[in-house]
Amino acid sequence: MGLLGASVTLAIQRALPSIKSIGYSHRPSTRKKARQLGVAGEIIDVMGDSVADADIVILATPICTFEAIFDDIAGFLKPGCIVTDVGSTKSLPHKWADKTIKNGAHYVGSHPIAGSEKRGIEYARDDLFFGAKCILTKKANTDEASLKVLDKFWTALGCKVEVMTPAEHDRIFGRVSHLPHVTAAALINASNPEQLSFAGKGFVDTSRIASGPANIWADIFLTNQANISMGIRSVVRELTKLEKAITSGNRKQIEKLLSQARDRRSEMIDSKMKRKELL
Amino acid sequence: MGLLGASVTLAIQRALPSIKSIGYSHRPSTRKKARQLGVAGEIIDVMGDSVADADIVILATPICTFEAIFDDIAGFLKPGCIVTDVGSTKSLPHKWADKTIKNGAHYVGSHPIAGSEKRGIEYARDDLFFGAKCILTKKANTDEASLKVLDKFWTALGCKVEVMTPAEHDRIFGRVSHLPHVTAAALINASNPEQLSFAGKGFVDTSRIASGPANIWADIFLTNQANISMGIRSVVRELTKLEKAITSGNRKQIEKLLSQARDRRSEMIDSKMKRKELL
Repeated sequence: MGLLGASVTLAIQRALPSIKSIGYSHRPSTRKKARQLGVAGEIIDVMGDSVADADIVILATPICTFEAIFDDIAGFLKPGCIVTDVGSTKSLPHKWADKTIKNGAHYVGSHPIAGSEKRGIEYARDDLFFGAKCILTKKANTDEASLKVLDKFWTALGCKVEVMTPAEHDRIFGRVSHLPHVTAAALINASNPEQLSFAGKGFVDTSRIASGPANIWADIFLTNQANISMGIRSVVRELTKLEKAITSGNRKQIEKLLSQARDRRSEMIDSKMKRKELL
Repeated sequence: MGLLGASVTLAIQRALPSIKSIGYSHRPSTRKKARQLGVAGEIIDVMGDSVADADIVILATPICTFEAIFDDIAGFLKPGCIVTDVGSTKSLPHKWADKTIKNGAHYVGSHPIAGSEKRGIEYARDDLFFGAKCILTKKANTDEASLKVLDKFWTALGCKVEVMTPAEHDRIFGRVSHLPHVTAAALINASNPEQLSFAGKGFVDTSRIASGPANIWADIFLTNQANISMGIRSVVRELTKLEKAITSGNRKQIEKLLSQARDRRSEMIDSKMKRKELL
């Protein structure tokens, strides 16, 4: 019941009013707030009870908690129940689910590409998923019927759904989501507070994502190590290329590298505009 | 008469209506547009004529053109004329001005921290400088009276003025402005277009500044080589620290580095909010 979890139940209340939404948090204070804010149809105090009758269970906790939570809830799930999550890496969650989600319950990975550098139930919004991509991940053993249900579910909440394997997902998002977080953090850490006091709007934007919660991002990094490491090495190579061009005064090469970045970004923005992903 | 130059004359028309503003561009098409849009009190076709009667001359061209322009205009300036610019590096402009701006004319560096990734007169705005810092740079030989006039001028346009040496300026902005541009470009160049099609809002923000014009940024990089190179090496060190923490699965170290970045950014944002620099 943080930013993402409560946004899911709020979006259900708006877009799928005939579906009953149930919220659970292990923190009594969050459950109290969730009741006060009315973010879900019902808030239940005990995890097992909260999933016992569910058709769909959606984990919205830090990724490294999934393994234990799968274990804790597995015995309470009814046959046909679909278990999914909103986490930013997918290979390990699939692996963990393979071991525990059984007896007619099915795991499918979900990753709605939506969020904020803010955290907490107070920032939840029922329109958080409007126009957002949602990646569903499946392996050879993934239940096709469950995948179809989740496709409909996320589409109803406003997402554009795409399906890929967890390995493909982690490769792509290691590059375009986890890597930018690493570089934003490195960029800030490369400056001291006195220097930062002179930063302009460009720096503020460039570093925004580094204000995300450290523990959640540590989980993401720790469950996508190889891809992120490869991405970091690739950025370091590009930085070194630019440094060489700058220190050797090679204007042609500097302009070539900057124009390449500029053109790729324009192309990216244009295609996002066309797909109405930047509203 | 691009984004910055035309914004200066528009801001003069609004904030200092009794001051006559004159625009010049070497491109006839830009002069035509400038006349149509009415961005300055008068548009003059010949560079020498445009500065001949001026109390203040403001260069708003790519930095590497300054040396030749100083040379071209020096003979037309009246005694007491103040020459300044809006460029993003300051050490070389001061050096070039020392050689040519003489006979009673004085050079002082100006760097209003305002702009956009857009370019061109069409994007000029009379409120571009509201709440922006403007750094004035002076050396031991800089004329104090001219510095005071420019302090009043930029303050009237909405800026908060700070004074420092060109060397100090280039060190600080090499770190908090030029370096982010390099990392944004490197980040984009580290991904191919197919990967970029999956980028979310975080990536779009993180990479925004890389859409700036390549030739103008090449000039900035080429006139601040040592500071930018030092900054790049510092980011590479921070990236390598994070990579080591990630590949070795050192959660404590990952969280420490991410929290440090998060805290420094909060501090930066808070102090900017207090100074009303993020309106």
